[in-house]
Amino acid sequence: MPGLLRNISILKRCSNLYRGDRLKEIPINPHHCTYVLTICHHPGISQEELAKHICIDKSGVARHLAVLEEQGYVKRIPSEKDKRCLLVYPTSMMEEILPKVRQATRDWNAYLAEGLSEEELELFRSLLQRVTDRAKNYADRREETDAL
Amino acid sequence: MPGLLRNISILKRCSNLYRGDRLKEIPINPHHCTYVLTICHHPGISQEELAKHICIDKSGVARHLAVLEEQGYVKRIPSEKDKRCLLVYPTSMMEEILPKVRQATRDWNAYLAEGLSEEELELFRSLLQRVTDRAKNYADRREETDAL
Repeated sequence: MPGLLRNISILKRCSNLYRGDRLKEIPINPHHCTYVLTICHHPGISQEELAKHICIDKSGVARHLAVLEEQGYVKRIPSEKDKRCLLVYPTSMMEEILPKVRQATRDWNAYLAEGLSEEELELFRSLLQRVTDRAKNYADRREETDAL
Repeated sequence: MPGLLRNISILKRCSNLYRGDRLKEIPINPHHCTYVLTICHHPGISQEELAKHICIDKSGVARHLAVLEEQGYVKRIPSEKDKRCLLVYPTSMMEEILPKVRQATRDWNAYLAEGLSEEELELFRSLLQRVTDRAKNYADRREETDAL
């Protein structure tokens, strides 16, 4: 049987294909859907918190946000408390596409879940949550070492 | 409880952080580890088969392979049967990094699995396989429609 990561990677890439198909009329990279969902849910989140929240390294987040800013989806404003800290806000253009991104995500989740019975789905969700928590634990510890 | 895709995405991104940390001395993007593993396992795979195998759209695969070719990791040679079809071969430079990519992948899989009992892991693997098959089924059907 293949390693866990192989299937997790395939699942993630198929999800990107699906999102790309569903959102093809919107000029947004499927990889950026997570940014849409997170930034609209936490307007004013700092670039650093966002990186931690979605488990991407700081330089990657800065690069993706620069693209989203150029496309008109976000605004980055220096924090009043600490000018080096950039706060990220969705523009009305990002808020406009949010319902479509949300719906495509819901539909894909429903499609994936359809192959399992209710009990199997519950079990899968709970095991997936535990494995994800373990992965996040690695990312969090890494972050702490970084801050020392 | 969050939707399946949310946790799958976090898992995948934490995996990239881990691979990035483990392979930081190698000039390769963690996103390209799948290419290393697949191309070394199937030397001479066509660009199109590769796209299907790893569930990335053809233009994405072409873009990533162009980067890998420029970095000296792959060679693309037109097929003798059909000159439009590009076959992808690993260079010795890619073969050299393969053991490290493989080991980092194995270690990460082992780290993730450690949080579950043997029975739970077996169950998780089997449910994950079914959900992945369902996701791949979407990608395959999409491919067929594309070929019509």
